[in-house]
Amino acid sequence: MADRLELDYNNMLAPRLGGRGLTPEALDRAAETFRAVHADVERRRAAGQLAFFDLPYEDRLVPQIRAFADGAGQSFDTIVVLGIGGSALGTTALHHALSRPFWNELDDEARDYFPRLYVLDNVDPSTIAPLLDRLDLRRTLFNVVSKSGTTAETAAQFLIVRDRLIRELGQDGYRRHLVFTTDPERGALRRIAREERIAALPIPPGVGGRFSVLSAVGLLPAALVGIDIEALLAGARDMDQRCRTDRLADNPAGLFATLQYLAHTEAGAGIHVLMAYSDRLYALADWFRQLWAESLGKRFDTDGAAVHRGPTPIKALGATDQHSQVQLYAEGPFDKTITFLTADQLPCDLPIPHAYPEVEELRYLGGHSLGELLRAELAATAAALASHGRMNMTIRLPRIDAHAVGQLIMALQIATIYAGALYHVNPLDQPGVELGKVLTYGLLGREGYAPPAAAEPDPRWVAR
Amino acid sequence: MADRLELDYNNMLAPRLGGRGLTPEALDRAAETFRAVHADVERRRAAGQLAFFDLPYEDRLVPQIRAFADGAGQSFDTIVVLGIGGSALGTTALHHALSRPFWNELDDEARDYFPRLYVLDNVDPSTIAPLLDRLDLRRTLFNVVSKSGTTAETAAQFLIVRDRLIRELGQDGYRRHLVFTTDPERGALRRIAREERIAALPIPPGVGGRFSVLSAVGLLPAALVGIDIEALLAGARDMDQRCRTDRLADNPAGLFATLQYLAHTEAGAGIHVLMAYSDRLYALADWFRQLWAESLGKRFDTDGAAVHRGPTPIKALGATDQHSQVQLYAEGPFDKTITFLTADQLPCDLPIPHAYPEVEELRYLGGHSLGELLRAELAATAAALASHGRMNMTIRLPRIDAHAVGQLIMALQIATIYAGALYHVNPLDQPGVELGKVLTYGLLGREGYAPPAAAEPDPRWVAR
Repeated sequence: MADRLELDYNNMLAPRLGGRGLTPEALDRAAETFRAVHADVERRRAAGQLAFFDLPYEDRLVPQIRAFADGAGQSFDTIVVLGIGGSALGTTALHHALSRPFWNELDDEARDYFPRLYVLDNVDPSTIAPLLDRLDLRRTLFNVVSKSGTTAETAAQFLIVRDRLIRELGQDGYRRHLVFTTDPERGALRRIAREERIAALPIPPGVGGRFSVLSAVGLLPAALVGIDIEALLAGARDMDQRCRTDRLADNPAGLFATLQYLAHTEAGAGIHVLMAYSDRLYALADWFRQLWAESLGKRFDTDGAAVHRGPTPIKALGATDQHSQVQLYAEGPFDKTITFLTADQLPCDLPIPHAYPEVEELRYLGGHSLGELLRAELAATAAALASHGRMNMTIRLPRIDAHAVGQLIMALQIATIYAGALYHVNPLDQPGVELGKVLTYGLLGREGYAPPAAAEPDPRWVAR
Repeated sequence: MADRLELDYNNMLAPRLGGRGLTPEALDRAAETFRAVHADVERRRAAGQLAFFDLPYEDRLVPQIRAFADGAGQSFDTIVVLGIGGSALGTTALHHALSRPFWNELDDEARDYFPRLYVLDNVDPSTIAPLLDRLDLRRTLFNVVSKSGTTAETAAQFLIVRDRLIRELGQDGYRRHLVFTTDPERGALRRIAREERIAALPIPPGVGGRFSVLSAVGLLPAALVGIDIEALLAGARDMDQRCRTDRLADNPAGLFATLQYLAHTEAGAGIHVLMAYSDRLYALADWFRQLWAESLGKRFDTDGAAVHRGPTPIKALGATDQHSQVQLYAEGPFDKTITFLTADQLPCDLPIPHAYPEVEELRYLGGHSLGELLRAELAATAAALASHGRMNMTIRLPRIDAHAVGQLIMALQIATIYAGALYHVNPLDQPGVELGKVLTYGLLGREGYAPPAAAEPDPRWVAR
């Protein structure tokens, strides 16, 4: 079907790589393994342990978000998302993929009267202070996104914004400029929402940050800037249905996970590059980076053995990174797979005019288009990497629209769960970030927490 | 001295890492090796083989750029750089580090009447078409940057822009809206500049793209948006002088290169993360990514043996990536070093107000500032990674200004040359990108070039 995401993995296999890469036989064996992986995932899903699978089927949420977004659209010309990590990356990915480029620079008409959108995914005061100084708070809505309601970065942003809102709009007016996305029952944000009558949308309890883009976390900001969230969810549902099969060759998420896992464990390629050949798809590679790294990078396997496992995801952009990273990808160690991400149709194209018929180095470009050039560069880079014996595959979207992006997001989320099963790690936890959080609390003097044991740097090992 | 970049590498060494990491003895031995590396680099420098070393001393260039920028500043309110890879990354890094955030969204007064700046580092028509449609070409200057003058992406951008300029401003008017940065003698752009009397600045012949940020490539756009290029070059000169010593402990570039090399070859850490704890410094990590990958990722060593060598650089952003990558960095394979990049003083700060004294999870934040939070997160993350046995070091700038950024850029450039000597590869070439270029030409029908040998994808290995 023309509307379906396509995965071409010819260049992962030895016949195209001069003997390097995976053998078709290894893939056949992996198809057997995949049946068991698939059965296990279906079982955990049926047991309610994989709540993100249900998000595209949440019928009641979409009208609620739509209603809120329609109302807010009348009152606000700027939306600011306060969140970090899984509360920010998905929203940024949707916005970059599906809104017009340079969105915040466009005038109201060019934005179809949808609001500007800022995602504050950090706590750098030199970014946040000038932004807050510049915004008209009376026309700005702040969406505070935190599952737990206690994320330090988001809490700090919230306290600063709340103070400004109260000073500008008074104790009565400020709450209308806030909407929380948080746990439906627990946590500081939920409690504040109740006590101060602030609008709040739920994040289903079993859905972790990096699997939350298709919940209110991503859907509310997306709807606010006019993205077709119904089509996004329809695409996700279509991909989910496609992945109900345990036949590996027909299951794109299964193939992606299996190929990456085999490349890592059988061919030593533990660095997984996702290289978007489209400015619009680049932020999806950043979103994927969290999904893959935080889900699979684990000290213990599911049997409790210390394994220090996990592939390293990298985001890259074509054609740009041909002039930065492809030298390493082509000639460096055989430790990488490259997954190209592209779309059959770009949202628009630009013809390259004929000029300088006497200049051989320019003449050949005339009559082509920028889209053709970009596509040619992708095909040439894929072929060149294969010639160098480098495993690569291509995810091809039919076009860059909400339905296609929904398919992609769901495919990569499901692939992450399959990969967790293949690597024998729990893809849903992140115990390795606790120590850093606790030490931060200690440094800030939070009750009951200690700062890092004070070891002054040895001056012999500091160059000043 | 308070104005100097500082490198703290305590956490690279075994005493801090529970036995993992490098031994102080290994570092002592490396100090001996470094003397030879340093002598070799000094020799090649004296022989004129490392032209980038001379850039900060080019006295005549700066007044020329200043004069051009002052003149252009009167006529243009938008600058568009047409370039890719080494012609774009340095400019973007300087602009993000040293201009106000959200620059292009600011009004004239907030930009001190300096022009807006766009760097078109890709050929995605869905980015470029809407931008060109929106610009007032009569007030726009296009800086076309290509050493060879034949880079396909830049040439395509140029042909499109030239055509629009001629249609809007006529054959006589258009050339005033162009300035080329290219080889002083050779190539298509130089020839066109001569024939059509277009302003052009030189890139010294021995300076390759990824070492060109301190030439007119980076300096012209930087000067146009009001960056203090004199201070930038002064910082670079100060660092260069600091790196004249062959005493490893006193040479920051030598330390950076040696520590990364030892971590890779003696401790298996071939993934080198540069993690900026400042939104402004993040683009410098992207610039570094090209420098490190393209210089060191090589098939052949300097003796001609096939070695497939090279570390893999990764850019990361703190605190943001604590919520995305740090799980993997802390618990995954011991295959990474993390270099934190920070500044003692941020350009501004934001206090976090006291609020919700009854909510324990928020109360501790009140009275601190966002800058303190960011700094605490860095200190906590560095300590936590060390506890997990993960090698990390910290580059600390005194502040984020042109002098400090000049030091950093020069340190990383010099470190790359040292690292080339340590890895025994030529850091100045990039033979691995040729095949992709040639195949692109073939696909576009350029005379004398063939497309990839036509192998249709085997449909068994495409999921549709």
